[in-house]
Amino acid sequence: MKIIGEKINGTRKRVRAAILDRDTGFIQDLALRQAEAGAAYLDVNAGTHPQREAEDMVWLVEVVQDVVDVPLCLDSPNPGVLRAGLQVIDQTPMINSISGERGRLDGILPLVAAHGCPVIALALDDTGIPESSEARVDIISRVIAETRACGIPDCHLYIDPLAMTLSTNTNSAKTTLETMQIIRAAFPETHFTMGLSNISFGLPARKYVNRTFLTLAMAAGLDCAILDPLNPDMIQTILATNLVLGNDRYAQKFSKAFRQGVFMN
Amino acid sequence: MKIIGEKINGTRKRVRAAILDRDTGFIQDLALRQAEAGAAYLDVNAGTHPQREAEDMVWLVEVVQDVVDVPLCLDSPNPGVLRAGLQVIDQTPMINSISGERGRLDGILPLVAAHGCPVIALALDDTGIPESSEARVDIISRVIAETRACGIPDCHLYIDPLAMTLSTNTNSAKTTLETMQIIRAAFPETHFTMGLSNISFGLPARKYVNRTFLTLAMAAGLDCAILDPLNPDMIQTILATNLVLGNDRYAQKFSKAFRQGVFMN
Repeated sequence: MKIIGEKINGTRKRVRAAILDRDTGFIQDLALRQAEAGAAYLDVNAGTHPQREAEDMVWLVEVVQDVVDVPLCLDSPNPGVLRAGLQVIDQTPMINSISGERGRLDGILPLVAAHGCPVIALALDDTGIPESSEARVDIISRVIAETRACGIPDCHLYIDPLAMTLSTNTNSAKTTLETMQIIRAAFPETHFTMGLSNISFGLPARKYVNRTFLTLAMAAGLDCAILDPLNPDMIQTILATNLVLGNDRYAQKFSKAFRQGVFMN
Repeated sequence: MKIIGEKINGTRKRVRAAILDRDTGFIQDLALRQAEAGAAYLDVNAGTHPQREAEDMVWLVEVVQDVVDVPLCLDSPNPGVLRAGLQVIDQTPMINSISGERGRLDGILPLVAAHGCPVIALALDDTGIPESSEARVDIISRVIAETRACGIPDCHLYIDPLAMTLSTNTNSAKTTLETMQIIRAAFPETHFTMGLSNISFGLPARKYVNRTFLTLAMAAGLDCAILDPLNPDMIQTILATNLVLGNDRYAQKFSKAFRQGVFMN
């Protein structure tokens, strides 16, 4: 299970302020702590005003890769911002994200192909997020036709089946899990990723919902997630789920994490 | 999700002492608290010396049904003990349990048929607990041939696919979940039940393993479990899992439980 550390995101107030103030220490601390907690990628989202997002992305990339060796996940819907980030990057990053939206495919696919990057593909298009799993699979099938045409291997795709909140749609998690099952069968080499916490938006006791959804998504094939690696609840759930799913021989990783105090809080 | 409250079990030291001392208050307190916590059945296991188990079962049944209206789950491998309990029982109980063991089938099936009881059926036989899911399904298929021959409807069967500890067998939970999937497809009207906590025997941080296993077992069709209804972790997990699986319209039950403080600890 790969973790994409989610904390360096300019849509969060405190991070946005740090970007605008060029607060190197604050950003580097987020980078270091997430890397130490085991993140495989660090998401980097400048999330500021469109007119300065490219410049802010370049600053973020340089500041972060100054202190960690973990590859980055360049996060923007804007091809120009991604191109700016790619120009200063040290290691092959992940791109976050393409989708069935025409503009994103046209603007971002060439970058992905040229850099040989893994890329996140969202199950939505210009008409929005479909209600049904079938329609989401349909979008992903069309996206994969285009990535294949560009020579991008399926194993570079991280499909995001999209998790919408359960508070307004009782079947929302079911739809997400079904979407994964169909895609797993049709495109066995793709990976999955997701921002998990949407699932509980507007609900109380969110952590209980998030961790339960994480367990069920892992059983459905989730092998990558965008989350906070400093959140013990998520890490504990990943360890316990890998154990129960038979992916932790003789509970060695689980027991080691226990000795390291991962289950203390 | 039906809960069979597990606390009145004479194999536990403190309960055994209460049975031997005829400590009515202690037993009735366990009964009342489990009933209040929402148990659908109360397991009643005298678990004392074979020579006195029947007499102790009768005492337990009478003491418990004096204070609660919840039906009992008469728990003994011994047909004589079950017969004694059935003679003093007020409401149709559940019987815990039959299996593929010849002696249990011959001794207990007639009681189940005569009383029209639901019954727990363990996926083991005279040769022990099979390693593979196929062999467990095989036993259950043979048991169901016998229950059908006795006129016991499939919907009265609570199949226990058996959870063995992950500490000595990495694939143990996988085997249990696979067993459930095959049985669900072959015998769609049967229920499932399980003692969950075996899964983590000998491991540290057991509650994380137990709750993860509970979530995955519910996704595989577990609709009844033998557990401690006073354990907030299990109740929280059941609520969150039902929500994520789409069984809690607009999160009404989850939100109500939150307002009642279920997620406080």
